[in-house]
Amino acid sequence: MAAIASREIRLAARPVGLPTDATFELGTADAPDPGDGEVQVKNAWMSVDPYMRGRMIDVKSYVPPFQVGQALEGGAVGEVVASKADGFKPGDLVLSMNGWREAWTGPAKGLQKIDPRGLPPQAFLGVVGMPGMTAWGGLLHVGRPKEGETVFVSAAAGAVGSIVCQIAKAKGCRVVGSAGGPDKIKYLKSIGCDATVDYKQHRGARALTKALAEAAPEGIDVYFENVGGDHLFAALQCLNMRGRVAVCGMISQYNDSEPQPGPSNLTQIIGKRLRVEGFIVFDFIDKQADFVRDMAGWIGAGAIKWEETVYDGLEKAPEAFIDLFKGANVGKMLVKLA
Amino acid sequence: MAAIASREIRLAARPVGLPTDATFELGTADAPDPGDGEVQVKNAWMSVDPYMRGRMIDVKSYVPPFQVGQALEGGAVGEVVASKADGFKPGDLVLSMNGWREAWTGPAKGLQKIDPRGLPPQAFLGVVGMPGMTAWGGLLHVGRPKEGETVFVSAAAGAVGSIVCQIAKAKGCRVVGSAGGPDKIKYLKSIGCDATVDYKQHRGARALTKALAEAAPEGIDVYFENVGGDHLFAALQCLNMRGRVAVCGMISQYNDSEPQPGPSNLTQIIGKRLRVEGFIVFDFIDKQADFVRDMAGWIGAGAIKWEETVYDGLEKAPEAFIDLFKGANVGKMLVKLA
Repeated sequence: MAAIASREIRLAARPVGLPTDATFELGTADAPDPGDGEVQVKNAWMSVDPYMRGRMIDVKSYVPPFQVGQALEGGAVGEVVASKADGFKPGDLVLSMNGWREAWTGPAKGLQKIDPRGLPPQAFLGVVGMPGMTAWGGLLHVGRPKEGETVFVSAAAGAVGSIVCQIAKAKGCRVVGSAGGPDKIKYLKSIGCDATVDYKQHRGARALTKALAEAAPEGIDVYFENVGGDHLFAALQCLNMRGRVAVCGMISQYNDSEPQPGPSNLTQIIGKRLRVEGFIVFDFIDKQADFVRDMAGWIGAGAIKWEETVYDGLEKAPEAFIDLFKGANVGKMLVKLA
Repeated sequence: MAAIASREIRLAARPVGLPTDATFELGTADAPDPGDGEVQVKNAWMSVDPYMRGRMIDVKSYVPPFQVGQALEGGAVGEVVASKADGFKPGDLVLSMNGWREAWTGPAKGLQKIDPRGLPPQAFLGVVGMPGMTAWGGLLHVGRPKEGETVFVSAAAGAVGSIVCQIAKAKGCRVVGSAGGPDKIKYLKSIGCDATVDYKQHRGARALTKALAEAAPEGIDVYFENVGGDHLFAALQCLNMRGRVAVCGMISQYNDSEPQPGPSNLTQIIGKRLRVEGFIVFDFIDKQADFVRDMAGWIGAGAIKWEETVYDGLEKAPEAFIDLFKGANVGKMLVKLA
């Protein structure tokens, strides 16, 4: 056993607008020998997720803000290299929130040991991890689509959206997915979307509404909201009576240095008796066993596939994160660390 | 029996922005002798309600649009003067949607006969009518406050809002009401509001938020939405975790010739897991017996009082309607016809 020098990405300055290189700094810290009850872990994969943008500003939210000068945090899968904790031995795979660094030492308590069951370890940052459970819980427990209903998914080629589309198909829904650019549209078709909207071809609330109305001529019943702005406008226009909006995120808003106004058609909520409801993945933590059972079944049956966009090396993590907001990823955006 | 000449208010032109005198025209029609199954009725009271603005434009909604050149419609209480319908006799009081006119003849089928039980007939256009049931259903079945929670009500001095405040108090909630001007604030205190916000003293989303935060230092749990715009922004900022927005109306938006943008803080819905849900009074029609029982109990116990703002004569109906949007009413806005 020995201390490991670990490179890490720190918050250099709170971003205004889209994060830039100046938002991040590369540093080095030691992952010391583990103490009693601790493990020493080398990270193999780390996740970058849009929600992390919210932690970069100094505002109280459902997770506390990152501190300037300190390493960022986020989901990571690593391998135990040394352990003084019962139940953990070298070679074990663990899921932690200690991403954005190559190695770390910390308490084993609360750490999730991964049994890969034939899945690649990074799948636990995606389809069978937080994004997968977000998709599953948000669609089934908040959106609650019925068989035969139409589900509209924005950012449908992303880590969460692509799983939402496939769960909706597995539940017998018609699925309309929105994404930007021909490659993503092709991907949406490959995962079973019945219709697609390339939002880059339909700029502005009215144009997007028209495109959605054409893709969903019978209207939509559930909107899985990842984007906000014009997408929310279009969805509100196209939602049917008693439609539901499962609000997972509004990525179009996260980098606004000045908050952007909301859609001008919120009165649709009244006449159509819409339900617009927010959620985060932790809301479903008591249902995790159901999620694992459902997802294992779908993956086993070939009903759910997943895609990854991989950046190589810790030093690429800031770029991977920034590129999330540029829509550079298909499927789960990951950084490979080892 | 004889035909009655009846003055009526017709839609002269679809309004753009706030309706004006030019929106309306006064005409005369005959209320003929009733045929088989018909009654002839002289209206005593008619209602003006904000939702009628939506019917003045040519857009499909939950009620069909008014037609230019034809008499407007709306709630009215009248007295049967002649009847060829079983179960209806002269002197009976009836509730109909044949407002905006002094008299009418039509089928008795679907007409609601009123048993006043000691209440003034116009109360059936207010506290025990549509506004009362809107308040009751929206608060209890959509907002679902628990005892001890804080309920925020906008347009709290209006026909619906003033009843919402009192039901919330009867249910053991802390109530914060918003209205414009010292007279209305005084009225809100008289009906039991624990705190008040005079929005005319706090213009703009940020100022209104600050005022609401001061009036509700522990945050709000339910927002009964009648206004939209800055009020919705302030409510979203101040809502507690798992708060609910019962969306009844957005009167600040109804006269916009160009739709106004929504609040810029819709992302609050995610982290706080808010539920924003629209409704209209018809949603509670199968619960009408519960409403009548609850409301009769509260009125009998003195827990619910009501106020009226009365304009005299059919020719004043357009002014009464326009004044709704200027906030000229305390409690139910009514036009006395006879």
